[in-house]
Amino acid sequence: MQLTLYTDYTLRVLLYLALHPEKRCTITEISTAYGISRNHLVKVVHKLGQGEWISTTRGKNGGMQLARPPKEINIGQLVRETEPHMNILECFDKETNTCPIIAPCSLKHVLFQARKAFMDVLDRHTLADALNQPEQIIQILHSSTQK
Amino acid sequence: MQLTLYTDYTLRVLLYLALHPEKRCTITEISTAYGISRNHLVKVVHKLGQGEWISTTRGKNGGMQLARPPKEINIGQLVRETEPHMNILECFDKETNTCPIIAPCSLKHVLFQARKAFMDVLDRHTLADALNQPEQIIQILHSSTQK
Repeated sequence: MQLTLYTDYTLRVLLYLALHPEKRCTITEISTAYGISRNHLVKVVHKLGQGEWISTTRGKNGGMQLARPPKEINIGQLVRETEPHMNILECFDKETNTCPIIAPCSLKHVLFQARKAFMDVLDRHTLADALNQPEQIIQILHSSTQK
Repeated sequence: MQLTLYTDYTLRVLLYLALHPEKRCTITEISTAYGISRNHLVKVVHKLGQGEWISTTRGKNGGMQLARPPKEINIGQLVRETEPHMNILECFDKETNTCPIIAPCSLKHVLFQARKAFMDVLDRHTLADALNQPEQIIQILHSSTQK
């Protein structure tokens, strides 16, 4: 069980922006800092803009910034947007389910409860909770850039 | 975020066996009842035997049965065995992680806590909790067989 790499990269972009509130950041600089493909980030950044998590400015000195402070970026809300679905088992989606015993089987209630417990934790946290050691993170990100 | 189809099918096989404690069941009968490929179930059943969740008897009247009562089949323990991993983000596995900020980033602690909350729910439940309406489930499974 895992979150998608898309969610993972989304969190990394937002973390980077949270650590550089004073400037407009570019996709190239973020992809270099994390050592991940620029192409992957293009889609991530596009969606973050659509969701109004970030604001982007075009042009020579353009780039992106967080559209709200880190403590207002709720991890649960973000993950719900970036994950294609949170259907832990096939029977979570009645439309696509093929298991014939979906109605009387009570296993799904156990998994519903587990998913709720998972999301409840994310809903209690914001991006600010990921930034306990900002200087150390910035130092690593910048050393990657200089390689 | 989802559990693998492999885990899903494992749970379905165990449910079927729990509902038929009086007889030895075959892969063919279970695959027909759920309408899923026999080939998928061969691997599932093999692993269930290796993990001593079921006992199998070869021969003409052979088949499989639960090796322990449903209330002793813990869902959390089972899912840990069937899932290839529970690494919610890449940084959960230090061996394969590529994210450079793994050490100072505190986001992983939020996700660790979420995974723990998820597994705590599963650890509190057994296969017996999936069997609230046994007659209704059996009826559906047998109507599939007669199709």
